Amino acid sequence: MTRYKIILEYHGRAFVGWQRQANGLAVQEVIENAIEKFSGEKVVTHVAGRTDAGVHAIGQVCHFDLEKETDGRTVRDAINFYVKPHPVSVLESEPVDNEFHARLSATKRIYLYKITNRRAPLAVEKGFSWHIPQELDVDVMNAAAETLIGKHDFTTFRAVGCQASSPVKTLDYLGVERDEGLVLISARARSFLYHQVRNMVGTLKLVGLGKWTVDNVAEALAARDRAKGGPTAPPHGLYLTEVVY
Amino acid sequence: MTRYKIILEYHGRAFVGWQRQANGLAVQEVIENAIEKFSGEKVVTHVAGRTDAGVHAIGQVCHFDLEKETDGRTVRDAINFYVKPHPVSVLESEPVDNEFHARLSATKRIYLYKITNRRAPLAVEKGFSWHIPQELDVDVMNAAAETLIGKHDFTTFRAVGCQASSPVKTLDYLGVERDEGLVLISARARSFLYHQVRNMVGTLKLVGLGKWTVDNVAEALAARDRAKGGPTAPPHGLYLTEVVY
Repeated sequence: MTRYKIILEYHGRAFVGWQRQANGLAVQEVIENAIEKFSGEKVVTHVAGRTDAGVHAIGQVCHFDLEKETDGRTVRDAINFYVKPHPVSVLESEPVDNEFHARLSATKRIYLYKITNRRAPLAVEKGFSWHIPQELDVDVMNAAAETLIGKHDFTTFRAVGCQASSPVKTLDYLGVERDEGLVLISARARSFLYHQVRNMVGTLKLVGLGKWTVDNVAEALAARDRAKGGPTAPPHGLYLTEVVY
Repeated sequence: MTRYKIILEYHGRAFVGWQRQANGLAVQEVIENAIEKFSGEKVVTHVAGRTDAGVHAIGQVCHFDLEKETDGRTVRDAINFYVKPHPVSVLESEPVDNEFHARLSATKRIYLYKITNRRAPLAVEKGFSWHIPQELDVDVMNAAAETLIGKHDFTTFRAVGCQASSPVKTLDYLGVERDEGLVLISARARSFLYHQVRNMVGTLKLVGLGKWTVDNVAEALAARDRAKGGPTAPPHGLYLTEVVY
């Protein structure tokens, strides 16, 4: 038996999210079906980040075990052959030690949230970025982001249905930068609560528009109450970009 | 009567190209219909680059004349309201001098061609980039690109149906650069022949794969024969990025 690690890219709009669900096609299902088609084995994949419906990935990681003797290159190409025509692609695949676990061994998860900040609606980037027509103040968003960095009880940014045993997480980095018409928000932590990144982004948007101050964000965090946080940003601006082991 | 210049973005896949045609929806049609809906005037738009079916634009320019008294901001927002749900968006609009002509006054047209150069198929960037799985040698592509810069008879890279009066054009810049898994080809000239950029890119691909040498490209150019050029690169990697006046 060999364990394989694969790095995945997918377009979130096509799926109900990573995890198998009754109401539509999940990335997990497409991947596991493709593995079965080329190997004849029913496998269960373990994933680093259980992304929601609409959330994109360009560096998702999962692992699974195969009895069949093969190699990383073959696994990558075979899965890519059988996932067609769904917008998911295995970028890399390699055999790993049996101790490796895509979810449990991860030390950093890195997300990028893309906002297009301009008056005109999106044409080319539609479905790939959150369109906010009013001008965002990136400096004040950054100051607010800094108040969230560190070890905190993130209940204010935790969605109902979160399966984490504790709301305490350590946010290693949260930064906002402007690149012409884009506002890019990067978040990095060992792990995140359910909807944490999107809830933080929705809150930072209020700060960027001048509706909230930096102090309001610190107060919301301290309140440990989801009702005190900002709204959830839409999924289509979010990208799981990298998982570090 | 006031002349308006508008800067446009659109997703090429949704249209048969810029120009009105019997076989499908053209960007021109969507824009002219939107202008009529808000102004009550039937206008004819003049465009800087008559992009083909599938070609994207993030900085297309066109102009038209309105009897109605209004302003640039209103023109932009009104067109954007009426073009829905088509993936086209007016980024900017301003009144211009009546001497201004979107096509004739343009001094530079800048195109970007995006190639994703990796083994794995595209998931997120599908329809936004040309997927070439075999590794491209960017240095030799650049050397070949340099042989095309300057004033030449570009008949070898001119498609059937080109309406230009002369095949002689001055190519100001053609450069190839790698940005991780992307290979980006930039082209700049006062004007291009029909399919010239895509035909040059298709030829540079042959060089990047080692199938053609730099000398082969120079010979193909000198032959002034479309049959001696490389194949036409697909439209979905091409972006009209900017028009300079």
